[in-house]
Amino acid sequence: MTGSQIDQLIQLLAKLPGLGPRSARRAALHLIGRKESLLRPLAQAMGQAADTVAPCEVCGNLDSVQPCAICRDPRRDPGLICVVESVADLWALERAAVFRGRYHVLGGTLSALDGVGPEDLNVGALIARAREAEVGEVILATNATVDGQTTAHFLAEKLAGCQVEITGLAHGVPVGGELDYLDDGTLATALGARRPL
Amino acid sequence: MTGSQIDQLIQLLAKLPGLGPRSARRAALHLIGRKESLLRPLAQAMGQAADTVAPCEVCGNLDSVQPCAICRDPRRDPGLICVVESVADLWALERAAVFRGRYHVLGGTLSALDGVGPEDLNVGALIARAREAEVGEVILATNATVDGQTTAHFLAEKLAGCQVEITGLAHGVPVGGELDYLDDGTLATALGARRPL
Repeated sequence: MTGSQIDQLIQLLAKLPGLGPRSARRAALHLIGRKESLLRPLAQAMGQAADTVAPCEVCGNLDSVQPCAICRDPRRDPGLICVVESVADLWALERAAVFRGRYHVLGGTLSALDGVGPEDLNVGALIARAREAEVGEVILATNATVDGQTTAHFLAEKLAGCQVEITGLAHGVPVGGELDYLDDGTLATALGARRPL
Repeated sequence: MTGSQIDQLIQLLAKLPGLGPRSARRAALHLIGRKESLLRPLAQAMGQAADTVAPCEVCGNLDSVQPCAICRDPRRDPGLICVVESVADLWALERAAVFRGRYHVLGGTLSALDGVGPEDLNVGALIARAREAEVGEVILATNATVDGQTTAHFLAEKLAGCQVEITGLAHGVPVGGELDYLDDGTLATALGARRPL
C-alpha cells in the first residue's frame, strides 16, 4: 500500500511495546513530518545505543560505560547491595533517589512455569559480591509477587553462608493509598506489621 | 539516573505519539534487549526513511520514489482523483482496496481557528490537475467533520470552473454499525438518504 521504506519502518515500529499497527502508522507519519528534529536524531540515538550500551559487568545495570556510572560512583556505599529483578526496577529506585548503595540486577525471577532456574539468573556473581569483605548488607528488593518472593527466599538461603545482613523491603499500605482500594493481602500485612506512632 | 545514551534514547522515544515517559522507558529496554533483531534494523530503517521518503510532487503521497508508486501505476485510472486530507486517510482508503484511481493529499483542512487558509493547503496543484483533459471526476473525500466539510465546499467552488464531475463520499450508517450507538446527525442523514431495496 505504501513505499517499501515506509512499510518497513511501520512494521518495525509496531514491534515496540505499547505500539500496535495503527499507532505505528501514526508514529511513522509523525517521524517523517519531523525528519531533522526527531527522525534523524532518533535513528542516531538508536545506532549509538546499539553500539555502546551493554550490561555492567559488575551489577548488570545498562550503561554506555564499563563498569556502570553507579558502580563507579565513589559517593555510593559499596557496603550495601540492593538486588532487583530488572533494570526497570533499578531505574524506579533511582527515580525515588533514596538509595545510596549499589545494585545487583538479577535479570528475572525464578519461575517454574517459564522454566527459569537459578542458572538463568545473575546469581553466581551476587554470591561472589556478597562474600567481599566490604559488603555488609544485601537488600532483596524483588517484586512482591509470588515469583519475586520465591526468588527472594531462594537468594536468602544462598546468601546465608556469607557474612552479610539480609533484608527485604517493608510491605504495607502504599503512601497516598486508600484502604478501600487495597487488596486483602496488603491490608493483612499492614495490620500485622503495625507500629507505634 | 542512567547512562546518557539511554537517557537520550528515552527522551526521543517519548516524543512519539502514543508513548509517554513510562512507555518510552519500556520501549528503550525492549530495544536494548533486542539489539540485532530490532534496535539496529529500526535505526537503519529510520535513517533510510529520512534519506529517501518525501511527498510525491504530483499528489502529495509519501514515498521513496518520485512520483509515488500510485501515480506511476499504469493500472490506476488517471481520470479519477480522490482528494484526502492526509496521507493517513490515503492509507485508510488503500487498505480498503476499493479505489482504483489516483489521489491528491491536501495536507490538512481549512481552519479559521488554527489559522489555516487555502494557501497553506495543496490546492493550486489540485486545480491544475483537475484542468487536465484526462481527468473526469474529482471525489472530495475530506473527513465528515466541520473543517473537513467546509474544505470540501470550498474546493467544490474552486473546481466549478474545471470540466470535471465533483462528488463526495456517501454519508450513512457505517457497515456493522448499530443504530443505538450512532449520533443523531448520522441517523438523520441515513434516513434522509434512504434508498429502495
